[in-house]
Formats: sequence, C-alpha cells, structure tokens
Amino acid sequence: MPQDIRTASLNKPVDVAEYLFRRLHQIGIRSIHGVPGDFNLVALDYIPKVGLEWVGNCNELNAAYAADGYARVKGMGAIVTTFGVGELSALNGLAGAYSEMVPVVHIVGCPSTISQRNGMLLHHTLGNGDFNVFATMSAGISCVVAKLNDPAEIASQIDHALRECYLRTRPIYIMLPTDMVTKKVEGELLDTEIDFHEPANDEAKEDYVVDVVLKYLHEAQRPVLLVDACAVRSRVLDEVHAFIDKTKLPVFVTPMGKSAINETHPSYGGVYAGNVSHPEIKAMVEDSDLVLSVGSLKSDFNTAGFSYRLSQLNTIDFHTDHCVVRYSEYPGVKMRGVLRKITERVDVSQLKARPPPKQLGAAEDEFEGNDGPIKQGWFWPRISSFFRDGDIVITETGTANFGIWETIFPPNVTALNQILWGSIGWAVGACQGAAVAAKDSGGKRRTILFEGDGSLQLTAQEISTMIKHDLDIIIFIICNDGYTIERFIHGMDATYNDVATWKYRDLGTVFGGSPKTVKSYAVHTPAELETLLADEDFAVNRRGLRLVELYMGREDAPRSLRMTAEVSAKTNARDQ
Amino acid sequence: MPQDIRTASLNKPVDVAEYLFRRLHQIGIRSIHGVPGDFNLVALDYIPKVGLEWVGNCNELNAAYAADGYARVKGMGAIVTTFGVGELSALNGLAGAYSEMVPVVHIVGCPSTISQRNGMLLHHTLGNGDFNVFATMSAGISCVVAKLNDPAEIASQIDHALRECYLRTRPIYIMLPTDMVTKKVEGELLDTEIDFHEPANDEAKEDYVVDVVLKYLHEAQRPVLLVDACAVRSRVLDEVHAFIDKTKLPVFVTPMGKSAINETHPSYGGVYAGNVSHPEIKAMVEDSDLVLSVGSLKSDFNTAGFSYRLSQLNTIDFHTDHCVVRYSEYPGVKMRGVLRKITERVDVSQLKARPPPKQLGAAEDEFEGNDGPIKQGWFWPRISSFFRDGDIVITETGTANFGIWETIFPPNVTALNQILWGSIGWAVGACQGAAVAAKDSGGKRRTILFEGDGSLQLTAQEISTMIKHDLDIIIFIICNDGYTIERFIHGMDATYNDVATWKYRDLGTVFGGSPKTVKSYAVHTPAELETLLADEDFAVNRRGLRLVELYMGREDAPRSLRMTAEVSAKTNARDQ
Repeated sequence: MPQDIRTASLNKPVDVAEYLFRRLHQIGIRSIHGVPGDFNLVALDYIPKVGLEWVGNCNELNAAYAADGYARVKGMGAIVTTFGVGELSALNGLAGAYSEMVPVVHIVGCPSTISQRNGMLLHHTLGNGDFNVFATMSAGISCVVAKLNDPAEIASQIDHALRECYLRTRPIYIMLPTDMVTKKVEGELLDTEIDFHEPANDEAKEDYVVDVVLKYLHEAQRPVLLVDACAVRSRVLDEVHAFIDKTKLPVFVTPMGKSAINETHPSYGGVYAGNVSHPEIKAMVEDSDLVLSVGSLKSDFNTAGFSYRLSQLNTIDFHTDHCVVRYSEYPGVKMRGVLRKITERVDVSQLKARPPPKQLGAAEDEFEGNDGPIKQGWFWPRISSFFRDGDIVITETGTANFGIWETIFPPNVTALNQILWGSIGWAVGACQGAAVAAKDSGGKRRTILFEGDGSLQLTAQEISTMIKHDLDIIIFIICNDGYTIERFIHGMDATYNDVATWKYRDLGTVFGGSPKTVKSYAVHTPAELETLLADEDFAVNRRGLRLVELYMGREDAPRSLRMTAEVSAKTNARDQ
Repeated sequence: MPQDIRTASLNKPVDVAEYLFRRLHQIGIRSIHGVPGDFNLVALDYIPKVGLEWVGNCNELNAAYAADGYARVKGMGAIVTTFGVGELSALNGLAGAYSEMVPVVHIVGCPSTISQRNGMLLHHTLGNGDFNVFATMSAGISCVVAKLNDPAEIASQIDHALRECYLRTRPIYIMLPTDMVTKKVEGELLDTEIDFHEPANDEAKEDYVVDVVLKYLHEAQRPVLLVDACAVRSRVLDEVHAFIDKTKLPVFVTPMGKSAINETHPSYGGVYAGNVSHPEIKAMVEDSDLVLSVGSLKSDFNTAGFSYRLSQLNTIDFHTDHCVVRYSEYPGVKMRGVLRKITERVDVSQLKARPPPKQLGAAEDEFEGNDGPIKQGWFWPRISSFFRDGDIVITETGTANFGIWETIFPPNVTALNQILWGSIGWAVGACQGAAVAAKDSGGKRRTILFEGDGSLQLTAQEISTMIKHDLDIIIFIICNDGYTIERFIHGMDATYNDVATWKYRDLGTVFGGSPKTVKSYAVHTPAELETLLADEDFAVNRRGLRLVELYMGREDAPRSLRMTAEVSAKTNARDQ
C-alpha cells in the first residue's frame, strides 16, 4: 500500500522514532545512552520530544557498559549507535549484557532502505554492498534482531522486541533506517502498554513440583538456601525474601548474587563460593542435606574455580524456566510460581531452621598498623561500615570483584559486578549508567565504584560524562600498578601486566570538572583512609564526583582471588 | 598421533607461539599491539623471545586502530587480544581494516581445546558453552579464520593465513587456545620465508589487454591518470610512478589516494573529488577523453557524494584483480602486470601529455588578519609548508579529512585516512601505531596527527601509550566544540553534537608525561600559529609528544566537507 494511503488509514499517526522512544519511556527508561552518528541524527531529535534525556557518551563501548549499568538499576537500558562503526564498538558491552542477562535495547541508525537496496558504496560500510553483515554479527548476542524496513510492520516489531528483551532479560538489536524514522505508524497502540507478564506455569505441573519440594523440605534436617545471579535477573527476589521471612532458613548468596538478599536479615549467612568460602559458611552449606538453589549460574569465577562441594542428590534447583529436584527435571516449570506456592504452603512447624554463621569481622592479620600499607584483606571488611542504606556499589573485574565478598551491606544496596563476562573497564561505564539511573529515580542513592588502575585506563574518559551530567559518584581507584588479577594467573613480574602511571587525581579537572564538581584524594594508609571515610564532606554532603587514589600493594590480592586465579591458570594449561 | 611421538618426529621442534611470532618477525613486523588477558598471557611471553616488542595499549579498540596504522606504514600489523571481551572490543577497528583493505593479523588467545570440548562455563563466555560464536562474528570481517586446534596442522594454517593477509590485504583471525601455545611444530619450516609473490597474469590475456590500452592511449587527445586507494593497498605505486616518469601524463589523486603520488612531481595535478574539486582540476579530469583510473574506490566521501562526472566510455579501470577498458571487462587480469607492460611498450612520441594545473595557494578570502580566527579554508593550504620530506600525516574523519585535500605534500609523505570506514577516534590509535612503525623503521620520520576534539574523546587514553613508548608525535587538536562534520549533515545546534570541554593541553601530564616528554600549546590566531610553526623546538628538535590546541570556529568547515555533507543528508532522507 502506498505510504500516503497507509498513513491516511491510521487513527493517530505518529512517527516511527516517536513510537519507539515513547515505548521506552513507558517501560521506565528516562535516559538514553549512545553516541551520535550521521545515520542516527534525525532519530535523536525525538529523544527530548518524548521526555527522554540524551546522555551522549564519549564512545560506544562506554555507552553500552553504561546502558548495562542503567538497566541493572532501573530495569531496562537503551543505547543508540550508528551503523557499522558505532554498533561494532559497542559489541563487547552488549555481549556482556547478553552473557550476564541484562535487558538492553540497542538501536542502530542505519542507511536508508533505498541506499541498502541499491547497494550503495557508503561510508561506514565494508565497501561490498552488504548491509546485513553487522546485524548478523549482533545476532549471536541478541535475543531479537528487528530490522525496521516496512512501516506496516514496525509497531508490532518494536513491541515484540521490547517484550522479549524484558522477559528474556537479554539485549535486542533494532536496525532503524534513516528513511523510516519519520514514517507513520499507529499511535493509538501507545494507549495500551506492552504486556510484560510472564505466562503462568501449567497449574497441575506446578503443584506437582511444589509437592515434591515440600516433601523434601519438610524432611530435611539441615536445609539452606543459596541465591545466585538468575534470581536477580529473573526478578524473584521478593519471592525469595517472602520465603525466608516465613521459614527463617539460613540463606547464602554466591558472588554474583551479592546484594540479592538483605544482608541485615537475621537469616543471612554470607557469601558461599566453594573452597574459598569462610570455613563456617562452607561447612553449613556443604554439610546441608538440602540446598534450595535459586537461579544458580555455576561459572568458574562465581564458584571460585568450580570448587563447589554439593551433591545433586541434596539439591533442588529453581531456575528461570525450569526446576530440578535431585535428578528429576521439570522443564517449563518456572521458579516464580513454585517459590510463591512453597512459601504459601510450607508447614513451618516441620522445618529445622538453624541460625546462620556469625557475620565476618575485619581480618586483623592483614592490618599492619595505622601507618602501614592498606591491605586488601583489611580494607574490604573495613569498608562495610562506610556503606549506607540504598547505596549502589559497583566492583570492577579484578581485586575489587573478589574483595567485595568480604563486605556486609546495609539494606537496599544494589551491587553490580560482571563476574561471568569479566570485561575490564566495564565498571566505569556501568557506574556512569547506574548513577544516571539513580538520578532518574529521584537521586537519593549514592553510587560507589571500586575500580582498578589498569581497568580504569580502558574506559577512563567516561568520567567526563559523569561530570557533564553532574552525577554524584565516589570512585575508589585501586592504585597497584597494573593488572593484579592477571599477575596471579600468569606473569607476576611480566611487563605486559604493567600499566602507565597516570595522575588519576587530575582526571576530573582534565575531563571538564571544576573544584566545585570534582574533588580528589589520595590515601596510602589505614589512618588516611579513616580520616577520609569520617569526612562528612566526602561521605555525606556529596555533590558531584569524588575520586580517591587508594594505594595498595602490587602483589596484594584478596585470598579468594588468589585461589581462583590458581585454578584458572591450571585450567588454561591443562593438557587433557 | 600422540603428541610426544609427533614431537619426536620433528626435525627442529619449536613451540606454536614461537613459530607464529617468528613468522611475524620475518614479515617485517617488530611491534605487537594489544591488551593482555588471561587466555593470552602465556603466548605473550614469546614476544620478547623472538625479538618483538609488546606495545600494550590501553584498550583493544585503540590497539586495533594502532595495528591498522602500523600496517599502513610498515606493511603489516598485528594485535593480540583475549577471548570474548578483548576480541569484541577490537571488532570495529578490524572491520575498519577490512573495509579499508589493511593487512592486520588478529591473534585471539582463547580457552584450551579441552575446556572448549567440555563446554565449560568459563568467564569471558556467553555462558552457553558456545566457543565459536566470537570467531563467527569475526568471519565477516576477516579474509581467513584459522582455529589452531591441531598441532599437526598449525604451521600450515599460520603460513596460509599470513599469505592471504598480505595478498588480499585484509585482516585475518587466528584463534590460539591456551593449551596449543606450547605444543611443538616443525621449526625447519621457518628456514624458508613465506612466499608472498602474487601469481603472474596469464601472459596472452595480459598482452591482449595491454594492446587494447595502448591503442586507446596512443589515440587519446587529453589523457589523464587518476590514482585511488586500491593503488596504494595493492602496492602498485612504483609501477604508477614509472609510468608517469616515462609518459609525463598529468596525474591526479582521489581523497583516499592522497600521498600516493609524489606531489612535487611535475606531472602531479592535485586532488580530484568530483564537484568539490578545484575548477581547473575538475575541468582537466572531466574534459579528458581518456581517464586511466588506477585502483578506484568510488565511495560517497571519496567522490564528494558520488559527484564524479566521468564517462565509462572514456575510462580504463586498472583494478587489483581485473581490468575494464570502456565496457570490456577482463576478470583475473591484475593491474600490476598490465601497468608494467604499458610503461615498457608505450610509444611516448604518440602521447599528448598536457601540463597539470598550477598548484593551489592559500585561500586569501578565508584570512581575517593575523589576529583573526583561524579559518579552515586558510589553515590547510598554509600548513602545507610545515610538512617535510618523509612525514607521516594522519587525518581524522571530520574537518581534517576534508581539509587535507587542500594541502601539498613534500616527497615521501605517507598520508593516512579512513575515508571509507570513517570511524571517529581511529586516527588517535592509528597515529600511535604509525609512530611505532616509524620508530621501528629507524625513527627519522615525523608523525603528525590532525584530530577533532569530539573524535579525540573516543580514544584519548592512547596518548598514554604514545608517552609510554616515548614516540615523537605532533598532535593538532582542532578545538571547535564537538562533532562539526555532523552539524553539517544534521543538527547544527543540536546538543547531541556538543561534547564536554576538556583541558586538552593537560592530557599529556595526566597520562604520565613530564615536561621533558610532553609539551602543550594553544593557538587561536594565524599569528600564534605562525609563531608556533616557526619554533624550531616544536618543528625540528622534537623529542616526545607535542599537543597543540588549535582553535577554530564551531561552524567552520572546509568547503569540500560542506558540500559532501549536504549530499549525505539528502541520501539519508531520500524517500524513493
């Protein structure tokens, strides 16, 4: 049907770009990350029109990391890039979101459908007339690829893609040609929000699983709960909390599940990570005769090198889209419904709920005096009391990601890490996105980043975006001369694990900050750290960016990192 | 065959990583770009062993850009990344090398073949047990994908891949599992260098084409030569120079061919770019009754928006792997052999060789006095006399890439640009790689970068790598408040085309420089620029990095950019 006739048939015609961005606004997104490029410029004009804010990152990889961080705090994130050059720069960030199950909408402004049809030799192409090669590259890391080429289909393509993005919690890829941006679609559809409800389980099947679970649960002598990444991603934390509130069963988290459970809850026991767990935690989990495992994701770094000592015979696995009781599998039975019903139906009088282990204190053997070096083993337990209700805490792959296991959070902390994908540099972008999300949600939460010096160098310029948007952020830069996590895997003294020595404390001013918007600090000793943490201007009356150079030993790492790295080195070298 | 028996059968066993890096050394590569990651660490140990240097970039995209810049100066480049996170970050840079036909070797350290076979849930994976997904993503932008999984095949896989990389001048992707690094291969093969010779043309076919070409050439009244990108990439510049030395025919270059021809050659006429060419150049090329077009690549920005006015009836196309005479096509007849023979056999007495147009002067109407602003139209012709024999000149996508058309180079200048792929930020990385290549070649050449402020922000940290390696580089940062090239396409006043205001002159010290290794300057007027260019300490006695803030108007752009941008905007909006 010719376009003008089709438009005339619409009850409330709106432009494609407006439709798309209004849908993002309905979902709760308020800020869009990305970098402008000539194939997306006209689309960008619609962002302020629908009440969204354009972040405007320094580069696309950083923007993708930021959209990931934003999504982890706000529910979903979005990034706009330009064809070829822009989208490919973002791929690692989006692959990370795919791997870690974070719902990010990737919108790629691309050449017009006419240019594509004519195979024009345009800039940002491979010069071979193939306009699908980049979409194909993204297909492996996207749960939907939507090419918006036909106005008659576009509204339903967008709605379908966004629904999948939310429910499957993975990135989607939307290819928006320049000539489609202003085409008309049915605006009346916007009056009904997209239905994001997960279909319920088959009731008979669900009841069957619930009965089996309850049977084992009521019989168990030493049941424990273990909460992992997919519990966070599949948004069942309310269900889990309701369950522990009622049952008082001791609950542990994996490294990727850190912050999933209210750590001031009387049932909270700490971080279980196989061999490197604290002995009391390890004993309680591994001696359990029934581990209720919620949303487990048994990757190498999440299990401290596959060092779990749990028997499947003593395990019930609750997964996003299936359950496993001992060796019985129940495909299609989603954990949400099962968790709700077992909470409802459990007979608390039959449960043996032991108290969890005591919370950890600081590792005193890692303290070498107020004027000694700041040791990793001392720092992490110590920093616990600096955290406040509602903080967003981001840890970079490296010492920070392992050290954070040794902390205890106040309520309502959101911890962000990338333990599965593990792309260094991610945390800087993710922090920027998380802080934007905090601002978009009312701006009461602090955003705190623990970053390595080597990692920071990959994405450092995003500090500029933090300043541009006047975000309230505290960054601890762990200054320990390079890639310490790699030193423990291979090449302790190899020069390839060194990085250039930057003047980190001056980054803020170089990237556009002023004494009003950025303050910098350097701490070398426990005494200096205590002074800083006690400084109300630093900790409480924050406004803008606070950069802390936190000096630690080059060959100092949390015990958990050292043990995990050893296993990694062996896996890499293994010959059969 | 079991590994130990196989090793015993080798005459001179060498480790796989040693074999690979020795081959790179034989090719002329001396420095390897990249970022360490746990799946490549053991391989990196071999780099110093075989006499190579590890550059160690700040991130993988920058490293890929640098390997591209290195290859454009030194013939071939190499980058090492780690599985997943590292390699994906590099993709845009490698896609650029594919698009622009630059031979770059991408070596990806990946999990051991055993981990792959067992589908282990490792970090840096998508968590789905698929270890081929990233190689598949690279396949579309690589001319060979070599997975080094079997020691018996590895030596020939490496030799084949490197040969294709060189001959097809495109990136190759080599996947090196951790357990293959130390496996043994036949070292005796290293005694014979890889044969990089291009197969000769079929002689009868070649002679036929040569006869046809000579017939038209001898008849032509107004023949001209037009030299483009593929002449550079296919390494036929010696053949072209031999031809113009003998024939004295006027020779022009396209924007991507800039610096291909010695611009002090009496036959050199300047840059032809369709509508935006200088009138005398346009007239001479478009009035020609025989255009000998060498290695043409008619992309939008290389033709100023497809604005060539040339008839195929008056054109002979010499391409890398075929020739076209008017409408007669000769597939498989490579230009190199044809160019050599027509030079040998041309009858100069029959040729009508006109003198080329006069060289350009500064655009006086763009000069607003010594203390006025620095206008683009004045700056570029002016900067010509600052260039010296042997300079390497890199221009970023944006005003610099168009402005450079207005310059005239001394002999032996190598100009680097990315007019087809056009990824902003590329030039900073490419500059670092080019400067390493210059250093590796004896260190007599200056490396000069013209960079935009918006573009610099994408890859700014690579300045740190320049300083770390004490490279001699001059960077002109065009400070004009954002993405000026985009303003001319769409959104002249849109905030998304703004960038944060950095203190560019302090970047050097923040990134590890000292007053000894970095000097910074700011120029706002022609007078200040003249003073700087006349400063011997700046221009001649350089040592280390020189950063120049070059202030220009936000809405000032070379005429060629303005006209090309207009065409781009129309193409984007075109409705049918």
